Amino acid sequence: MSEQKMVYQFSEGSKQMKSLLGGKGANLAEMSRIGLPVPPGFIVTTEACNLYFSRNKEIWPELEWEIEENLRRLEQQTGRLFGGTRPLLLSVRSGAVVSMPGMMDTILNLGLNQDTVMSLARETANHRFAYDCYRRFIQMFAGVVLKIDQYHFENMLHEIKQRRGVGSDAALTAEDLEQTAGLFLELVRRESGSEFPSDPRQQLTLAVKAVFDSWHTPRASVYRRNHRISDHLGTAVNVQAMVFGNMGEDCATGVAFTRNPSTGEDTLYGEFLINAQGEDVVAGTRTPRPLPELGQLMPEIYRQFTEISGKLEAHYREMQDIEFTIERGKLYILQTRTGKRTAAAAVKVAVDLVCEKVLSREEALQRVDPAQLEQMMHRQIDPGARLNVLAKGLPASPGAASGKAVFCADRAQAAAAEGEKVLLVRPETTPDDIHGIIAAQGVLTSRGGMTSHAAVVARGMGKPCVCGCDALRIDLVNNRFYIDDQEYAEGEVLSIDGSTGRVILGNVPLIDPELSPEFKEILSWADQIRRLKVRANADTPEDARRAIQLGAEGIGLCRTEHMFMEKSRLPVVQRMILAVALEERLEALAELLPMQKNDFKGILREMAGHPVTIRLLDPPLHEFLPDRDHLLLEVDRLRREKGDMELLRQKESLLQMVRSLTEMNPMLGHRGCRLGIVYPEIYRMQVEAIFAAAVELLREGLAPEQLQLEIMIPLVGHNGELVRMKQEVEQSAAAVLREAGCELPYLIGTMIELPRACLVADQLSESAQFFSFGTNDLTQTTLGYSRDDAEAKFLPFYIQQKILKENPFMEIDREGVGQLVRIAIEKGRQTRPDLKLGICGEHGGDPVSVAFFHEVGLHYVSCSPYRIPIARLAAARAVLDA
Amino acid sequence: MSEQKMVYQFSEGSKQMKSLLGGKGANLAEMSRIGLPVPPGFIVTTEACNLYFSRNKEIWPELEWEIEENLRRLEQQTGRLFGGTRPLLLSVRSGAVVSMPGMMDTILNLGLNQDTVMSLARETANHRFAYDCYRRFIQMFAGVVLKIDQYHFENMLHEIKQRRGVGSDAALTAEDLEQTAGLFLELVRRESGSEFPSDPRQQLTLAVKAVFDSWHTPRASVYRRNHRISDHLGTAVNVQAMVFGNMGEDCATGVAFTRNPSTGEDTLYGEFLINAQGEDVVAGTRTPRPLPELGQLMPEIYRQFTEISGKLEAHYREMQDIEFTIERGKLYILQTRTGKRTAAAAVKVAVDLVCEKVLSREEALQRVDPAQLEQMMHRQIDPGARLNVLAKGLPASPGAASGKAVFCADRAQAAAAEGEKVLLVRPETTPDDIHGIIAAQGVLTSRGGMTSHAAVVARGMGKPCVCGCDALRIDLVNNRFYIDDQEYAEGEVLSIDGSTGRVILGNVPLIDPELSPEFKEILSWADQIRRLKVRANADTPEDARRAIQLGAEGIGLCRTEHMFMEKSRLPVVQRMILAVALEERLEALAELLPMQKNDFKGILREMAGHPVTIRLLDPPLHEFLPDRDHLLLEVDRLRREKGDMELLRQKESLLQMVRSLTEMNPMLGHRGCRLGIVYPEIYRMQVEAIFAAAVELLREGLAPEQLQLEIMIPLVGHNGELVRMKQEVEQSAAAVLREAGCELPYLIGTMIELPRACLVADQLSESAQFFSFGTNDLTQTTLGYSRDDAEAKFLPFYIQQKILKENPFMEIDREGVGQLVRIAIEKGRQTRPDLKLGICGEHGGDPVSVAFFHEVGLHYVSCSPYRIPIARLAAARAVLDA
Repeated sequence: MSEQKMVYQFSEGSKQMKSLLGGKGANLAEMSRIGLPVPPGFIVTTEACNLYFSRNKEIWPELEWEIEENLRRLEQQTGRLFGGTRPLLLSVRSGAVVSMPGMMDTILNLGLNQDTVMSLARETANHRFAYDCYRRFIQMFAGVVLKIDQYHFENMLHEIKQRRGVGSDAALTAEDLEQTAGLFLELVRRESGSEFPSDPRQQLTLAVKAVFDSWHTPRASVYRRNHRISDHLGTAVNVQAMVFGNMGEDCATGVAFTRNPSTGEDTLYGEFLINAQGEDVVAGTRTPRPLPELGQLMPEIYRQFTEISGKLEAHYREMQDIEFTIERGKLYILQTRTGKRTAAAAVKVAVDLVCEKVLSREEALQRVDPAQLEQMMHRQIDPGARLNVLAKGLPASPGAASGKAVFCADRAQAAAAEGEKVLLVRPETTPDDIHGIIAAQGVLTSRGGMTSHAAVVARGMGKPCVCGCDALRIDLVNNRFYIDDQEYAEGEVLSIDGSTGRVILGNVPLIDPELSPEFKEILSWADQIRRLKVRANADTPEDARRAIQLGAEGIGLCRTEHMFMEKSRLPVVQRMILAVALEERLEALAELLPMQKNDFKGILREMAGHPVTIRLLDPPLHEFLPDRDHLLLEVDRLRREKGDMELLRQKESLLQMVRSLTEMNPMLGHRGCRLGIVYPEIYRMQVEAIFAAAVELLREGLAPEQLQLEIMIPLVGHNGELVRMKQEVEQSAAAVLREAGCELPYLIGTMIELPRACLVADQLSESAQFFSFGTNDLTQTTLGYSRDDAEAKFLPFYIQQKILKENPFMEIDREGVGQLVRIAIEKGRQTRPDLKLGICGEHGGDPVSVAFFHEVGLHYVSCSPYRIPIARLAAARAVLDA
Repeated sequence: MSEQKMVYQFSEGSKQMKSLLGGKGANLAEMSRIGLPVPPGFIVTTEACNLYFSRNKEIWPELEWEIEENLRRLEQQTGRLFGGTRPLLLSVRSGAVVSMPGMMDTILNLGLNQDTVMSLARETANHRFAYDCYRRFIQMFAGVVLKIDQYHFENMLHEIKQRRGVGSDAALTAEDLEQTAGLFLELVRRESGSEFPSDPRQQLTLAVKAVFDSWHTPRASVYRRNHRISDHLGTAVNVQAMVFGNMGEDCATGVAFTRNPSTGEDTLYGEFLINAQGEDVVAGTRTPRPLPELGQLMPEIYRQFTEISGKLEAHYREMQDIEFTIERGKLYILQTRTGKRTAAAAVKVAVDLVCEKVLSREEALQRVDPAQLEQMMHRQIDPGARLNVLAKGLPASPGAASGKAVFCADRAQAAAAEGEKVLLVRPETTPDDIHGIIAAQGVLTSRGGMTSHAAVVARGMGKPCVCGCDALRIDLVNNRFYIDDQEYAEGEVLSIDGSTGRVILGNVPLIDPELSPEFKEILSWADQIRRLKVRANADTPEDARRAIQLGAEGIGLCRTEHMFMEKSRLPVVQRMILAVALEERLEALAELLPMQKNDFKGILREMAGHPVTIRLLDPPLHEFLPDRDHLLLEVDRLRREKGDMELLRQKESLLQMVRSLTEMNPMLGHRGCRLGIVYPEIYRMQVEAIFAAAVELLREGLAPEQLQLEIMIPLVGHNGELVRMKQEVEQSAAAVLREAGCELPYLIGTMIELPRACLVADQLSESAQFFSFGTNDLTQTTLGYSRDDAEAKFLPFYIQQKILKENPFMEIDREGVGQLVRIAIEKGRQTRPDLKLGICGEHGGDPVSVAFFHEVGLHYVSCSPYRIPIARLAAARAVLDA
């Protein structure tokens, strides 16, 4: 069947062969190739893995034979025999192209059985060491291959220690460990119903199968989905001769980063344990020692290691994460890989490597993941703060938040209404909890993963969220919760860090994000490369100021409705809406005019010299009116009481108005330019306010070219709407400018947020001087999703079930929405080749979407101020990755 | 400037020159050409009209000169002089390509003044006749040219008659009429502030201008919009020598149809008045006599007229509407045009003309307007019934309805809730009245035109509506209404006929529409020509039976939710929805299964041999739950009363459920296949019910090929949805068929109702064996309109303001929605060339839309049963008009 080579010796591979050998294997091969001390071994390829699945999970004879061949060469290289009297022992590890949680990690000491363990004891003259290896091997193999729960073994070991009256594993004697191994074998027999496989070759085959099978564990699948890794890559299997860090005091094992993974500082960073196997470093039963101490204990080895670590970083031109073992005074490197790091460290390492002339600026930009930068752009826990970290869950939605733990959405809403800060803490959330999520500072759940309801909804709302915190147990009946057996009452103040998954007791000091000098440096390189301009969505002078600080080159969306919502203005706005006669409405508008004018003045002043796109009023009018349910109950009460009949009549007519403005589907209702057409006086007031503000600024000394006004008409679907609104805007603007005796050029354009607008873009661009894609609404209409409803109802399920790859409100739906965007651009340019093109939906801050917008040839993206650095970097990446 | 000929003698034109000469002018020319007795005259062209508007409504010298030229030729032909002692008098009439209300009609006797009236008196030796002509001319000219209200003249004439102590105009003497003319001239001076123009040439110029100006009256504009007539056609002006039907007893005037315009019967039909001018026939002051009586009075003239009328019908190959005048024993034909007729008459005339071998079948089909057939497809007033017609308004939405007149939407709703039939009677309606319109049998308004709120909303809902009934006056304060000074109380039973605009006192007997033999005949011709199949939207066996009777070739949309809404089932459905555990839901579904099975059985039996497309559950679940406001108030009451705590808890949890299912935008919410994916058990039950029904029918003896099942998945936007649902359907169907040991082929397809579905149609057609365009929802999403909200709020305004040409929910939006339909067809066929394509939105019954669906190559349209004949005819017309 397969004529292909399925197994490679380390010496036959290189780092270029990642997709065939997996990341781990390719690096082991590479290190062998450049002469580093790597224990010999071989790699079963990812292609073998794929073939295994296409053969219904059967290992076929040719593969067995190839493994046997390589095993024999390994025996020759080590001078040992697999299952022999000088036994060859193996470590077996998975090796996908990208390592991922949920994949089988490692089986050490494979090849041991009742015979070889005695050979090992004889050979090393260390009975205790041999049986320690054996009992560890049985437990690991039973766990990862035979799927027997680890706690059985732990309980048993615990019992044995109690019976022996000792506190630590180290205090167990050789005989204790021999007995432990025997009991473990019995445990396996009992739990699995069959004997522990004693044939080393059978052990190896089963281990290889287990590695393959782990490719399709649910956790690995979820991880791949989240990280957009294809299911068809498969995993390799790394088989390597064992070396032992636990043969005595001249042995050790450890891990190291070539730079500090938290800060990016250029110092070797790591830890080690004397006389231990790799797993001990992770297990936390003994406290590892910081790496520099190795220099005192084994100066020559330490020198050798620092040399190798420098060599590796230079060779890979990237910060490395290295595993090493020292066996009887000899250093072995067991693994090297790109070191995972915080966003801050990623930025610093990249910039430093440029300064060290290791990387070009372009390469450095490609080393920083724009999406990862998001964690730097949220409010964070003060790194200097002392934290009482109770537990860790999944970092489901970035940012930090503190508040009283509340278990029920209704109570959360009630408490928030009284001004309390709350965290919604639930086993998991459902659509019924939406009002609680809205009311809460953040969400913490004990169950559910990165695509659970809570996670998706919180990310959608930009709220911090920690999910699947297993250590947390909530007792909904008695209003108590437990973390590691410690009891807390509902109402206890907790903090969560959605960027790391930490759950912390009490309030924590939060700090605003700030750009490090390295961050600024790398952004300045990005600015030189990117072609897309980056603007901000900003509605206030404060937003505008922050946006400029973060590198905005203008405002792409200034929403005027937020100005209407301000507490002191709402009554005037309501009066305007409820006006029966035009005259009344005009009066209320006249009152609003100076307020809006001052808003615009503030924003335009901050943005002097940059373009500012102002969108005329967009939301349906009922958004400014009181709550309907509340009014209904009040009217009902007044009717029953039969007291203040005048008030009743007032409230009744208000209710009547609210009812008549209520819409079945407000998203598709009387809003956007549909308001502007039916109530032209509202838009007229807004345009007057804009130009009055501009005139005042001109009089205060601003040059006309510092005012780059772009008036944007929302929700246009038919050309007639735009033609009429453009005329209105031009007339109102001209009147203000004429009266002031000023001249001021400005642009009029439209948001493209309806499928129809895309389809008739050639007509629209006759009037529109710019298009700004409103991808939020365009996504809602193209997909027929109400975002509010979808994210609360079926969207999490859809993503979980892989019906959708991504939340289309976070990453643009290329196939559907993207296709319409392309149509609109093509048609728009047909009529007006110099049409200005931008996007102001939330996708403007999503790196994957930014790449798409670059690809289709927009001129700018606009996003919320804190996403501007992300967009700047993503825009540069889009150029480099093209 | 213009070198073009702007004025044509009748002898220079023909019926082919309609667009230049207008309909009336072209026919006058044609009749002259074929030698009929037409008084000579000339025509100012439509191009002159357009030029007039482009010159800011100024008559230019070249045009004046050309008119003068033609006037001179007219003087020669008649041997009279304009303004001379043997005065030439003129009739001036507008002449658009299509005649339309609101256009200036006619000025007779133009050319009279203080001098020429005396000449006329002398010439005819009939003083009374001359002054009668003069006072009529003054009044007409003052009304249509000088815009002086007619009631001034009528009041004055009334006074004169009172003063003289006479009852009718006829009793006034020559002196009385001379005095009347004088008083009229004074009246004009008073009202207009200047002298009545006495110069005949000035009179003519002013009249020509008035005709031109009338092209842009609001009423004419509205009419053009409704009838899709371009604003740029312009109107011609017909200037013709007067002939007089009012010179004595040997004179007469009348109108005639070559066939009966109500029934289509082949008999000359018309009426006449002895010694009268044309306006008298219309005015109703004297009762005209039926045409056959003319045969007794003037047998030779009558013979001559019947001959001419036969000649005209044969010449035009179409039923004619003819105006004639007899002046001193000589017959003149003043106009001929295609006779307006009822839909029934149109059908009969067309079929008869085929039998008479005048027309081919194809021509006959082109003579019947499918849209007009709609009036035959609504419940109609029994034509045999004696009616007390009180008034007439605009026929705004077809069909007839009876009910108590109610003036306020709230009261209408309340009365309807108690089972009363009501008509909502309002001066005009606003969005606040929607609930009243929904509750009422029909709507009657005293103000507003064919595009008023009431008209648009009622048409959208398919409710009868009569608008703009001027004779109706509503006193909202005292709950009374008046028609022609007769007082009625609110609550009086009225009937309206939305097809004719009649308002009738009391209940009227209604009859179901029925197809006449001629209608069936012409439909059978249509069936031979059309390429589009026609199916029905039918949800019950009764609907299905009716659909077959009306010629349906299958069911294109069977909505399963209507089966859920049935009163006895609703509690089970609610139990299913409110189920917390899956088991509970399954139990409720098991109860619903046999009910649905019987529904399907009935429908499939009726449709044996025809395809039946069944759509799985589509609407959001909250549509099946109780009203939220109602529940809210109930919970509030129970809380206050603190009585039945168990009931309170129940209601609270129901409210909670209703709230959690409530969506911001249900149209874009959790519905369609999104339900099927999250609650697969619902779709499973439905599929089981469908196939269980099929199995029972097979056992009862139906052949498998008589069951042509098409299962339709609604609201698909992503391929993953369809793939998964298809699998579900196939599994459930296979299970039922396997258990029964039956085999039955069937199709699985999807509705295309989201823009995204159109854009990824190439993916969808991998799984879908058919597409059915759901153009209602596709219009909502493509345009971003919520139909409920749009038709109640901005859509009437948009249509009035010409931002939209048509209601896009009635006539398909070709530019936007149509473009997506084309994209979907092209992409769908790329993957599956034999993809079955249909449409099941309401547009399936709209003739203009049907033409589009033919053009883009669909296989069938599906519409409500009563629209099937319309669709059949429209589909044939689409072939013929292509």
